[in-house]
Amino acid sequence: MNITKYLIDPVYILDHLGVFVFALSGALAGHKKRTDIFGLFALAGLTGLGGGALRDTLIGNLPAVFLQDSVYLFLVILAVLLVFFFAGKVENLSSVIVAFDAIGLGIFTIIGINYGLQFELNWYACLFLGITTATVGGAIRDSLLLQTPNILTREIYASASMAGGAVYLILEYYASLTPTVNILLGTFIVSLIRLYSYYKGWNLPRSKMPKEFMNKQ
Amino acid sequence: MNITKYLIDPVYILDHLGVFVFALSGALAGHKKRTDIFGLFALAGLTGLGGGALRDTLIGNLPAVFLQDSVYLFLVILAVLLVFFFAGKVENLSSVIVAFDAIGLGIFTIIGINYGLQFELNWYACLFLGITTATVGGAIRDSLLLQTPNILTREIYASASMAGGAVYLILEYYASLTPTVNILLGTFIVSLIRLYSYYKGWNLPRSKMPKEFMNKQ
Amino acid sequence: MNITKYLIDPVYILDHLGVFVFALSGALAGHKKRTDIFGLFALAGLTGLGGGALRDTLIGNLPAVFLQDSVYLFLVILAVLLVFFFAGKVENLSSVIVAFDAIGLGIFTIIGINYGLQFELNWYACLFLGITTATVGGAIRDSLLLQTPNILTREIYASASMAGGAVYLILEYYASLTPTVNILLGTFIVSLIRLYSYYKGWNLPRSKMPKEFMNKQ
Repeated sequence: MNITKYLIDPVYILDHLGVFVFALSGALAGHKKRTDIFGLFALAGLTGLGGGALRDTLIGNLPAVFLQDSVYLFLVILAVLLVFFFAGKVENLSSVIVAFDAIGLGIFTIIGINYGLQFELNWYACLFLGITTATVGGAIRDSLLLQTPNILTREIYASASMAGGAVYLILEYYASLTPTVNILLGTFIVSLIRLYSYYKGWNLPRSKMPKEFMNKQ
Repeated sequence: MNITKYLIDPVYILDHLGVFVFALSGALAGHKKRTDIFGLFALAGLTGLGGGALRDTLIGNLPAVFLQDSVYLFLVILAVLLVFFFAGKVENLSSVIVAFDAIGLGIFTIIGINYGLQFELNWYACLFLGITTATVGGAIRDSLLLQTPNILTREIYASASMAGGAVYLILEYYASLTPTVNILLGTFIVSLIRLYSYYKGWNLPRSKMPKEFMNKQ
Repeated sequence: MNITKYLIDPVYILDHLGVFVFALSGALAGHKKRTDIFGLFALAGLTGLGGGALRDTLIGNLPAVFLQDSVYLFLVILAVLLVFFFAGKVENLSSVIVAFDAIGLGIFTIIGINYGLQFELNWYACLFLGITTATVGGAIRDSLLLQTPNILTREIYASASMAGGAVYLILEYYASLTPTVNILLGTFIVSLIRLYSYYKGWNLPRSKMPKEFMNKQ
C-alpha cells in the first residue's frame, strides 16, 4: 500500500472506494437472502471486483489490477465483516443497498472511462467501457441471487451511467478544469441521477407490444 | 470505418452482420419481456458483443476488437432503435428471434474458427472456439432473462454449430475453394441445420434415467 | 500429448484430473435435469474448463491453456460419453456429483494458487486466485441450471478451498517438503474438509436479521 499515491491520486482513492461500496452492496444483498459468511464474501468479491476485472480483461491490462494490490482484498474482507456484525441493526436494508450501489455506479463509470482514455481508445469505446464495467458487478450479484438485474428493469440505471459518463468525457475533452474536478463531477452526476430517479420513481419508456399480445394479458 | 476493407473482406462484413443479428435477437428478447430502452441496449450489447469479447479474451487478442471499431457500437444502437420503434408491429416475435439467432450462430461459429486458424491453434481448439463464441452471447441473453439457455434445451443448437464448423474446417484444410466460398458455405450450413431442425422439431437423444427415478415421475 | 511430461509433473496430471472430475460433475448435473447430449457437453465443458479459463484470463496467460492442449477436450468428451451411457445406472446421483465436485474443488484451488506463485503474485492474490478459479466452474454450472450456486448456500464450500489453500501456501513458504507433497496434501485437505462437512451437515454462521424482519417471517 503506497501511502503517498493514496493521498494524491483521486483515481486511486475513488477506485478503492468504489470497490468498497460495491462490496458492501453485494454483502448486504447476500445478508438479505440469508447466505452464510462465505456467501457474503463471494458476493462482496464478485460485486466489488467483477467490474474492474472485466475492464482489465477487455483492454488487456493483465494480470488484473486487483491481483496486484492487497488493499482490494482487505476492503472486501472489511465489507463482509461490517455486514456480518452490523447489518442486523440496519432497519431499511434495501435503501442502503441502493445508495451504495449508486455511489459504486458513479465511481466505476468514471474509472472505466479513465482507463479507456489512458489506453487511447475512442470516446465511444471509453463510454462503453465505463457503462459495462459499472454495471457488470451488480448484474453478477443479482444473477447469483436469481433476481432480474437492475440493468434490465425499468429504473434509470445504465442511463445514469451513460449521461454522467458523457458529461465526464465532454469535460475531459473541452473544459479547462483539473482532472480531479472532472472525475469528481462525473461521479457525482451519475450517482445523483441514479438516486434522484430512484426516489422519484422515474422510468425509461418501453417499446410498444403487438395488439394481440396486449389483449392476452 | 475503413470502407475499402468493408467491401473486400468477407470476414469483416460477416462479423458485423453477426453482431447486428445477435443484437437484434437480444433486443427482441428484451422487448418480449418488456424491459426499458436501456435494458434493450444491455441485452443487444451483451448478446451481440459477448461472443466476440470472449473469443478475443481466450486467445489474448486484446484490447477486444469491439473496443477498437466504432461500427460495432453503432450496429448495437441501430438494432435497439429498430426494435424500440418497430417491434410492436411484429406479429410473431419468437420466430423472428429464432431466425436472427440462427444466422448469428452460423456467422459466429465460422468467424470464431477463422480467428483460431489465424492464431494457429489446432483444429479441435478452433472448433471449440467457434462453438463457444457462437453460443455464449445467446446464453448470456437467456440467463439474464432467467430462461434456460438454448444450448441446454433439447433442440439442435450447439450441434448445428459443431457440424457446420467441422465442414468449414474440412473445406479450409482439404478443398481448393477460395476462403470466401468456404466461409459462406460454413455459415450457411450452420444456420440451415439450426433452422431446419427447429421447424421440424428435431431433438438430440437424452441419456437414460435410473429406474427408481422414472417411477417417481 | 506429451507422455513424459504427463508422467513426471504432478501439476499437469492433477490439472487434467480436475478438469475431468468437474466435467463429470457438470455432465451429471445436466443428466439429472434431462438435458440433451449437447447440453451435457456444454455443462461439462463450462464446468471443467471455466475455472482454468478465468485463471488464465486474470493473470494474462493467453491464449488460454485449454486451447493449446488437446487432452482437455478429449477429457470433456470422455466425461460426456461416460455420463450419457452409464449415468442411468447410478442410484444416488447427488452423492456422486458432490464427490466429484469436492475433488475438483481441491485440485483447482491448489493449481490456481500454483499458477499465482509462478506469476509471482502475493500470497493473498494467490489465495484469491485459487478460491475463485476453484469455485467459478461449479457456479456457472449451477447458474445455467437455474440453481443457487453452492458458494452461496450455507454449506462449507469456499471456506474449504480457503483453509486448504492457506495450508498449501504455508507449506510452500515454510516447509521443506517436496513441491509434489505440498500439492497433494493441499488438494487432499480441501476435498476432505468439503466432503466431511457435507456429510456431517456442518454450516457456517449466518449474520443476524433485524428484529422487525424476523417478526414478519
